[in-house]
Amino acid sequence: MKGFVVRFEPEGKKLTAHSESTILDLAKEVGVGIRSECGGKGKCGKCRIIVEEQHNLSEVTEIERKHLTPQEIGRGYRLACMTTIRANSLVFIPSESRLSVRRMQIWGMEQPVKLDPNVRKVNLVLEKPTLQNPVADDLNILTHLEKVCGLQDLEWEYELVKNIPDTVRVGNWNLTVTLLNDRRVIDLEPGDTTSRSFGFAVDIGTSKIVGYLVDLNSGEVVGFGSLENPQIAFGEDILSRISYAEESPEKRRRLQVLAVEGINKIVQTACGEAGVSPSEIYELTIVGNTAMFSLFLGIQTKYLHLAPYVPGVKGPVVVKAQELGINANPRASVYALPNIAGYVGADAVGDVLATNIHEMQEMCLLVDVGTNGEVFVGNREDIVSCSCAAGPAFEGVHIQHGMKAVSGAIERVKIDPKTFEVKYVTIDEAKPVGICGSGIIDAVAEMFKCGIISERGKFNDLETARMIRVEGKPEFVIAWSEETAIGKNITVSLKDIEEVQLAKAAIHTGCAILMEKKAVAEEDIDKVFIAGAFGNYIDPESAKFLGLIPDVPTEKITFAGNTALAGAKMALLSREVRKTAQRLSRWIRYVELMAEPNFQREFVKSTVIPYRHLERYPSVKKYLEEKHR
Amino acid sequence: MKGFVVRFEPEGKKLTAHSESTILDLAKEVGVGIRSECGGKGKCGKCRIIVEEQHNLSEVTEIERKHLTPQEIGRGYRLACMTTIRANSLVFIPSESRLSVRRMQIWGMEQPVKLDPNVRKVNLVLEKPTLQNPVADDLNILTHLEKVCGLQDLEWEYELVKNIPDTVRVGNWNLTVTLLNDRRVIDLEPGDTTSRSFGFAVDIGTSKIVGYLVDLNSGEVVGFGSLENPQIAFGEDILSRISYAEESPEKRRRLQVLAVEGINKIVQTACGEAGVSPSEIYELTIVGNTAMFSLFLGIQTKYLHLAPYVPGVKGPVVVKAQELGINANPRASVYALPNIAGYVGADAVGDVLATNIHEMQEMCLLVDVGTNGEVFVGNREDIVSCSCAAGPAFEGVHIQHGMKAVSGAIERVKIDPKTFEVKYVTIDEAKPVGICGSGIIDAVAEMFKCGIISERGKFNDLETARMIRVEGKPEFVIAWSEETAIGKNITVSLKDIEEVQLAKAAIHTGCAILMEKKAVAEEDIDKVFIAGAFGNYIDPESAKFLGLIPDVPTEKITFAGNTALAGAKMALLSREVRKTAQRLSRWIRYVELMAEPNFQREFVKSTVIPYRHLERYPSVKKYLEEKHR
Repeated sequence: MKGFVVRFEPEGKKLTAHSESTILDLAKEVGVGIRSECGGKGKCGKCRIIVEEQHNLSEVTEIERKHLTPQEIGRGYRLACMTTIRANSLVFIPSESRLSVRRMQIWGMEQPVKLDPNVRKVNLVLEKPTLQNPVADDLNILTHLEKVCGLQDLEWEYELVKNIPDTVRVGNWNLTVTLLNDRRVIDLEPGDTTSRSFGFAVDIGTSKIVGYLVDLNSGEVVGFGSLENPQIAFGEDILSRISYAEESPEKRRRLQVLAVEGINKIVQTACGEAGVSPSEIYELTIVGNTAMFSLFLGIQTKYLHLAPYVPGVKGPVVVKAQELGINANPRASVYALPNIAGYVGADAVGDVLATNIHEMQEMCLLVDVGTNGEVFVGNREDIVSCSCAAGPAFEGVHIQHGMKAVSGAIERVKIDPKTFEVKYVTIDEAKPVGICGSGIIDAVAEMFKCGIISERGKFNDLETARMIRVEGKPEFVIAWSEETAIGKNITVSLKDIEEVQLAKAAIHTGCAILMEKKAVAEEDIDKVFIAGAFGNYIDPESAKFLGLIPDVPTEKITFAGNTALAGAKMALLSREVRKTAQRLSRWIRYVELMAEPNFQREFVKSTVIPYRHLERYPSVKKYLEEKHR
Repeated sequence: MKGFVVRFEPEGKKLTAHSESTILDLAKEVGVGIRSECGGKGKCGKCRIIVEEQHNLSEVTEIERKHLTPQEIGRGYRLACMTTIRANSLVFIPSESRLSVRRMQIWGMEQPVKLDPNVRKVNLVLEKPTLQNPVADDLNILTHLEKVCGLQDLEWEYELVKNIPDTVRVGNWNLTVTLLNDRRVIDLEPGDTTSRSFGFAVDIGTSKIVGYLVDLNSGEVVGFGSLENPQIAFGEDILSRISYAEESPEKRRRLQVLAVEGINKIVQTACGEAGVSPSEIYELTIVGNTAMFSLFLGIQTKYLHLAPYVPGVKGPVVVKAQELGINANPRASVYALPNIAGYVGADAVGDVLATNIHEMQEMCLLVDVGTNGEVFVGNREDIVSCSCAAGPAFEGVHIQHGMKAVSGAIERVKIDPKTFEVKYVTIDEAKPVGICGSGIIDAVAEMFKCGIISERGKFNDLETARMIRVEGKPEFVIAWSEETAIGKNITVSLKDIEEVQLAKAAIHTGCAILMEKKAVAEEDIDKVFIAGAFGNYIDPESAKFLGLIPDVPTEKITFAGNTALAGAKMALLSREVRKTAQRLSRWIRYVELMAEPNFQREFVKSTVIPYRHLERYPSVKKYLEEKHR
């Protein structure tokens, strides 16, 4: 039997199988944890997984029909212990079936904002109408609102209008009005409910959806939720999802529904945690890259990947939560923040808002490291931006032993420059299963630092037991098989190094070209912000040694965390921030790297570790010189 | 068998039956025309009628099941030739089954307005995006709109957003944007469609729904439609419909759906006539009395008839046509004009707008004659208004031979003061079937003028063959049985006269009390406007002799026709008019007659023909003095 590749998401682990096996067995083989309380006998029904390509699987068994509804089966749910697989497939493990939970970056740097949310609740005590003054109920409310808040020309949600007369009488002329943007009445409740007003800020990442539940009266985060983006089952990267969406309007709709269901799950989690009813959520703010923004809103994405890579809709987009199927107050509103360009999204606007580089006098470099990295260079005078197709190497994809940042992932690597002995740290201090992004950056940077590889990424001829040959090709052992949970050596191969070089070159090229555009050299940069859920775990020294970011003093570097979500939260709390977001989305200049004449040349230079011209990496140069002295 | 009463609507004719008979036979007996091409054999299926109280009817036959769908049967449809009836019932004859069409007042006096509709279409020729300038499609549209019209901060209908990228490319970067109130994008079409922009103005009357299809580019009426209000099947007057709506939310919903279906029918008629697609209608303006407004919008009406008679919702109300189920562009908007009070509705605001009394220096009296009459006294300084429960006598109800203004109705009556011979005119010059409102006003006024009745409405002792006795009570014959289509004398009875006295007293009391409020006497009134679909057919001399309106010189009286609909049309064409409507709805003072201390006294005085104090009717006084001289 010809080999076939099975990939497990969200771990990002894959293996080549050569015979028809159950999915549960394959998962064990590759070190991915799936719940299986009954030990694979089809009794507990816990090992639920989702596979899109159903035709690669064995028939649905009677046992599975007991544990899964026909709707679930229709949506690709199976039991891992009962299902065998025989061709290339992607297996998605929903959170309820997972043994280990992925690490999520929830926190992000943010700026303090003056509390001025788009949602306002006002308690009114009306005068009862009389024969002498038979004032209409709606006018009664409106005139009191004008008296209390000075608001005029308000609009009503039609659904509310129908029940105005009953609502005012149930509340015995005491009621609470909820206003959107001081313009539209979106709720009417008997009594005083002003203390219960919540919003929800969401970052729809390509791989994760994270969200804050925020009390709009205090501005405090009162709950949060996070989840793998369920769209992963239909394509790991943006391009494959866009291609999937293009196949039919139904598929486009399917991806939209998945994103909405994902948001509903984190709303549920956060609300449960905080003792808040989803009906008390009156507004949601959404950030995401332009593709996630478009897929979430069901926008045609076809032209996003055709030159000139125009975002069909840049936004902002305001839509009723109910129209999208989001579980919140029936008249809640969704504000999807605006994007900058086809590949610099609203999440990047969030990065800018949260780091505040648009108001700084200092020259800033902002890098959001991810599959689609974004780079900004500038300050309050002018900001240029670009997108870098780094690819998913830093998410552990295309790396032989790569994996995402879940339990058992090697996240830190140190190599002794003399003995080449390796020290590593794993997430949750579990036995190693693979290497995640920060681990692979560390590993390659350390290998270069210690002279194990050259600046071209080739292995030097060294005497150490850790240099082994697999199928004739050299690999460097990070963890010996007996130390690992998978019973195999965890190594870094020549191809892995190449993947890392390409990924880091993509980011660095973005930095270099933007710096050139702004005529800014490394020494002119006053501040560097590294953002992204992932970015927080990178070792800054490794990042510089690898040449992922320019060589600036470490004290100038700030790890900013999930600034995209922080920006969404700021927009939830302040209408002024929204205006700024809209301004930024038009004001920040976008540089299309593809259209830059020296893009190719710069990219090739950037594949060198740390860079073709070592003079631009003085701290690395100094280290190497000292080492060789 | 005890007698039972069957009433036919919209004719308003009724008869007492004593044995179970087919509805078709009863209709023939009372002179109401129902189509019946097969002669009552159940073959043609044309005699479709609607009866609410199904339990008073014979079982549904197999023949009926052939001609009617189960849905129709569920909604009360039957075939008149196959259905027998055995208890008090209301039979509604839908327009498609009618032989004679009711006369509708479509025309109304109106004021010229500066064309500035709420809907605007703009044709844009966009620049194609390039790699150097990869402008997003939505921003491309918005910046061009700003360039062309100076509009900023526009909002998008979400349904449009999804297809922006496809729409701009289908149109090859040439497209037409439709804006609502210069604020919201409600349509996006490839190419230039600016010449196709329509609106629809509707007056939902208690008994009729009438509408204009209007070209928003020219302001011209290009089609119209009219229909009996289908709600009549569930209550002829406002109070019985409100009571029906209160019985359950489903019944409230049912009345709403009937109003919407009625509007859809006249939209269909008007569009068919004008070669316009309903999807080219972008806005509808709606007027109606407060109860019709509320039932159309599905608003709780319970409190309308409980003191202090507060209109739950005064309006204006803006709602998407689609949310109501109205057949127009999917993103069309409905603007329901504001009301003044519980019984002075948006239709009355339309009356004021169309007659322009709020801008006049002259002292005006405006009377909208109808089942619920409205009266206004004032000018640009100040206007007071009230509602008069005239009852349906002028619609022919509660009058022995009363009927609505359809073929065969006697609409003009002249009596020779010497011979007491009667001349009459019928609608369509058909053989008389009954007497409609203007006919009964003429008849009673003439009977008074000729001394047949006293100022108290009692028959004087006269020698004429036309004075007959029926069951011992005196009646005056207007048409002898051999002249009529029903083979019976058409007469005016003592009770008929009493009904007319009560109805005219209600209107006159409104006029008198408002005039007193404003300290205005008959000679101070410069202009009288008589509005209402019905009002146009009243003879002004008869109205004065009867004491329906104050005694002012005939040249000061203007019959204004359907000013309610004209006002709705003005609001469709001008945003300024809408602002005025809103202002008027709050500015016009409302007088609750019930709360007036001298209401009862004034009402009793007003039942006298023309009035208790003849000095207030100098022209009548002069006529009577000359006659007796």
